Amino acid sequence: MSEKSKTNSASDIPTMGRYPHLDRVSYPHDLRNFSNDQLRQLADELRSETVDAVSTTGGHLGASLGVVELTVALHAVFNTPDDRIIWDVGHQAYPHKILTGRRPRIRTLRQPEGLSGFTRRAESEYDPFGAAHSSTSISAGLGMAVAHHLRAEEDPSYKERNVIAVIGDGSISAGMAYEAMNNAAVAGPGAKRLIVILNDNEMSIAPPVGSMSNYLSHLMTSRQFLSLRDLAGKMAKRLPSRLERTAKRADELTRGLITGGTLFEELGFYYVGPVNGHDMNQLVPILRNLREADEGPVLLHIITEKGRGYKPAEAAGDKYHAVSRFNVITGEQKKAPAGPPSYTSVFARELLRRAATDDRLAAITAAMPSGTGLDKFAKAHPERFFDVGIAEQHAVTFAAGMATEGLRPFCAIYSTFLQRAYDQVVHDVALQNLPVRFAIDRAGLVGADGATHAGSFDLNYLCCLPNMTVMAPSDEVELTHMTATACVHDQGPIALRYPRGSGVGLELPEAGEILEIGKGRIVREAHRSPDSKKGVAILSLGTRLHESLKAADHLAAQGVPTTVADARFAKPIDTVLVEQLARQHDVLITIEEGAAGGFSSLVVRHLAETGLLDEVKFRPMALPDIYIDHNLPDVQYDQAGLNARHIVSTAASALGVDLAQQTA
Amino acid sequence: MSEKSKTNSASDIPTMGRYPHLDRVSYPHDLRNFSNDQLRQLADELRSETVDAVSTTGGHLGASLGVVELTVALHAVFNTPDDRIIWDVGHQAYPHKILTGRRPRIRTLRQPEGLSGFTRRAESEYDPFGAAHSSTSISAGLGMAVAHHLRAEEDPSYKERNVIAVIGDGSISAGMAYEAMNNAAVAGPGAKRLIVILNDNEMSIAPPVGSMSNYLSHLMTSRQFLSLRDLAGKMAKRLPSRLERTAKRADELTRGLITGGTLFEELGFYYVGPVNGHDMNQLVPILRNLREADEGPVLLHIITEKGRGYKPAEAAGDKYHAVSRFNVITGEQKKAPAGPPSYTSVFARELLRRAATDDRLAAITAAMPSGTGLDKFAKAHPERFFDVGIAEQHAVTFAAGMATEGLRPFCAIYSTFLQRAYDQVVHDVALQNLPVRFAIDRAGLVGADGATHAGSFDLNYLCCLPNMTVMAPSDEVELTHMTATACVHDQGPIALRYPRGSGVGLELPEAGEILEIGKGRIVREAHRSPDSKKGVAILSLGTRLHESLKAADHLAAQGVPTTVADARFAKPIDTVLVEQLARQHDVLITIEEGAAGGFSSLVVRHLAETGLLDEVKFRPMALPDIYIDHNLPDVQYDQAGLNARHIVSTAASALGVDLAQQTA
Repeated sequence: MSEKSKTNSASDIPTMGRYPHLDRVSYPHDLRNFSNDQLRQLADELRSETVDAVSTTGGHLGASLGVVELTVALHAVFNTPDDRIIWDVGHQAYPHKILTGRRPRIRTLRQPEGLSGFTRRAESEYDPFGAAHSSTSISAGLGMAVAHHLRAEEDPSYKERNVIAVIGDGSISAGMAYEAMNNAAVAGPGAKRLIVILNDNEMSIAPPVGSMSNYLSHLMTSRQFLSLRDLAGKMAKRLPSRLERTAKRADELTRGLITGGTLFEELGFYYVGPVNGHDMNQLVPILRNLREADEGPVLLHIITEKGRGYKPAEAAGDKYHAVSRFNVITGEQKKAPAGPPSYTSVFARELLRRAATDDRLAAITAAMPSGTGLDKFAKAHPERFFDVGIAEQHAVTFAAGMATEGLRPFCAIYSTFLQRAYDQVVHDVALQNLPVRFAIDRAGLVGADGATHAGSFDLNYLCCLPNMTVMAPSDEVELTHMTATACVHDQGPIALRYPRGSGVGLELPEAGEILEIGKGRIVREAHRSPDSKKGVAILSLGTRLHESLKAADHLAAQGVPTTVADARFAKPIDTVLVEQLARQHDVLITIEEGAAGGFSSLVVRHLAETGLLDEVKFRPMALPDIYIDHNLPDVQYDQAGLNARHIVSTAASALGVDLAQQTA
Repeated sequence: MSEKSKTNSASDIPTMGRYPHLDRVSYPHDLRNFSNDQLRQLADELRSETVDAVSTTGGHLGASLGVVELTVALHAVFNTPDDRIIWDVGHQAYPHKILTGRRPRIRTLRQPEGLSGFTRRAESEYDPFGAAHSSTSISAGLGMAVAHHLRAEEDPSYKERNVIAVIGDGSISAGMAYEAMNNAAVAGPGAKRLIVILNDNEMSIAPPVGSMSNYLSHLMTSRQFLSLRDLAGKMAKRLPSRLERTAKRADELTRGLITGGTLFEELGFYYVGPVNGHDMNQLVPILRNLREADEGPVLLHIITEKGRGYKPAEAAGDKYHAVSRFNVITGEQKKAPAGPPSYTSVFARELLRRAATDDRLAAITAAMPSGTGLDKFAKAHPERFFDVGIAEQHAVTFAAGMATEGLRPFCAIYSTFLQRAYDQVVHDVALQNLPVRFAIDRAGLVGADGATHAGSFDLNYLCCLPNMTVMAPSDEVELTHMTATACVHDQGPIALRYPRGSGVGLELPEAGEILEIGKGRIVREAHRSPDSKKGVAILSLGTRLHESLKAADHLAAQGVPTTVADARFAKPIDTVLVEQLARQHDVLITIEEGAAGGFSSLVVRHLAETGLLDEVKFRPMALPDIYIDHNLPDVQYDQAGLNARHIVSTAASALGVDLAQQTA
């Protein structure tokens, strides 16, 4: 099936005929004359098509299944793409993609050169704002609404436009969403056409935590769903015609019709809900009324079920949040072939081992207990485990507070998400030299999640901070050592950054060793004949070590003596090692899995200060200055120019020689 | 007076004798047996001493005057430093410093080698958490409370401890504070001794904005202050003895006694208030009761007046938020000698000029309308001006949303505060290549505000981002051009970063010119005699240009041909210029007002790729890897090694010659 879909032609879709309604919809305008009954049937077909497509690609299934009816209703009621729908995070947008011209390519989701697993402006005019990190939709939507209003005032050809931000109950707990809500009601007349739809499935990736989550549960359980009759009757009475509407009446509509939602009302929103988000007969009329009522901002609270309508998903603990390819009938997911353990699990294993005898160790996650491997820690030490929800800023400063009282906190946050807490790392941790441990997973390029999730910048934004220590393991054994080192490092903040995916297959030590801070190691010594030149040194930070060794073998085979060293520490650098490599070789290459200016900038500074920069040909290798699309990680690193053959090229070019590349 | 105070001896304080109560208090334990009457008198004296001290130093006066009574009451009731008081932002902590052993040095506030203008762990055990950026106190306090509880469970020698976070109504609107509150009620038993004091003065730096602010005003005006009699009576009835307390009774205390504060209650806090924060007879008994009631987290809402008790401050629009030295009797502030306009005002002037004819220009600030110079824009174009409050994350993504709809938004945020919105810059702006303009004020070292406010890292965290353009002006004329350039640059995000303080005194052009993106300029050509070497090129980014020119004059006088170029763009770099400088000189120095690895890393990469790195002696100069304490900016740059004499040294060392330094 995935073979056929690569032809990208709608007529080839093998499911033709099973989907009489969906087959009539290429774009949203095709469904706008559907009856509610037809919309319901369309939703059923759309759900089936979504399951079928993701079964061939893998991806974020559960969230998409929860919003099938909402997706259909939104496109039926609103005039997309002129009206803007912003899907927060964007991983629930697969049904939206199917309805907006991308059904022919839906089986290329997350595949090389295929559709993105998130919304993306470059992909469709129906994606007005790209997403992947959570909690951005209200800010972006408010900006759109306000901007459109300003432009409409200048130019009468601009029509009124609704902006709809769909955000989950997990995402709304982030500070950014609160900042946006706090600003929405006072941002001026442009905000009145902003509709925030709170998609409440009591589940983000893991079950959400925090008071907001408790509060939403309370709202949900303390009040009845609206029945259609109640709603239609009340609305008909209160909104007799568009012309007669007044601000007062709109106020009655939203405040009088359905009471509650006080917290949102206190933030200046008109609260409507909760509403059954799978009931088209409720969704469509409510959305129609909200479309006409321009006295927002409005918050519509809908209740949905993650994984809805697909039995294996409904039954699973994570509601098929993110799945690999699976059998549609049984729901059985294709297991990855057994291989070395993931870096994530290696980190978690060593932390857990040390926590058994060190009760000062604590662990903090921002809504990623299983993604960070901390779920095991949580089971073993629930009192020392803290899932703060999607709240990276708080997570870091919370850890800083703990560190002041003598605990040894680990903040386990993906590289790309630690960007959310940068100021807290700088101001609350590094400046005060507090011993917070940062376990930075998904560093470097990350494969199918693409550029939005790439951990490309942490070396840049951390290595520039005084007091910060930064490690990057070259393999899973090294990660074990570095985790142990971080556990005992009480002198200041320390970060370990490691990639997505599996280790290289080494046997793990019983226990990690404590590394000397700022010391690297030589992994491969250059072999020199009496007449050979000094050759090449490759100083690798992180898992490019294996490409470096491959390159070294190739260079050596061509007669170029080559040394390979594992830097271990991006900061502080091993100045003795750097000087030694510079003195003993013609060429010094640094390589790192991050953007230019991280690790290498500390090396170049030291070489310049010692004058060694004038003696050695220095060649820093780093990620190129482009965003690299989702693909297989090895292909991504090839695009990035950081594989063995690129190292060989760099060395050859620096040496001014022409080397055969056949084996690299 | 400031002369005398430099002796740092309490006995020399010239105000001795006027302060019979304050003179008895060196540390908080000295005031714990004071009666309420005595505490009131102590507060009056403390206020007077604070005014007197700040009149000699300048600093943040208004906020400190608002919390004099609270400061006295907290130290009277709580067992500091064992109980932890965290002052959010920390600029209201001058009275706290006076009461906690630092009165002898209080007239060194913000002076070279003197006390910090903020709380600081290194300064006193009474400062358990350093601050300067807003909204961190609840997270830090929660971390402390939870950590202490965990350690107390392990070790019975740990006594119960209260953690008090004092946060202003401006600061609580930041997302981070919300994240912390959302987490507090579910963070486990450790959080029950967390007391958040909301210091509500309806004023942060500027009047606060947003729904939260409206909500607090509503709470304040809709209910009466508690009278002492009401309070004492109710508390006596409800808390007969510590032993009889139960969770249920504590619940009644806080919920039954004073209703309201629903938003905080919905976030899981026990809300108490509002209370007159200047009435010792209310504050002391309430704090005593909260100290004993360990069923938190508690939010105590107090109402205070910024600038309270000092007539000139009460009468001023900004309540003397931050003042220069002043006459205590008249309140008249010492004016800085008339000089060139500030970079801030130069930016604002050009933006305003262009906004007159370009209605797509919009401006966004995060609670800094006057600090960013946007107050003038706000008056001229209120409909296109947005103060979103202390909410940098939202500010950036709000701007991104605007940019998608064709507006030309400027986000004006200090370098140090843009760290709060780093992920939004990466994920919402740069990745999508949206034309958001970042006006980054206070870049580089910032003088009296010290390390917490230094803009040291923006070149590092921005230059690594694909699609980003980054400019830094060498003087105010250049800033005019760069502002104009940013106004019209619709191809993607663009940042201009400029320092705190005044320009160099150039006449400003009528209108800024549009600069070619990625092009620098040669400011001074090397003059070579037939027998001279190739000499030195200094490629300067930002306002070090003037030190570079001084260094060049000195080098030239010593016979070293020296070229000076103004890079203008940190990214993209001017590759033609870089190559030309590298080819034509023996030494190439880059200099930038930021940490190593920003601008220079792009230069070194290009030199390495072209092989020119092997031909020229490359010397990158940048901030050292330390945090630089508050001082005069020129002294700070001297400590940083970025003044003319350091450039000369760097050049001489690279050339291997010994140059006299007398004129540099």
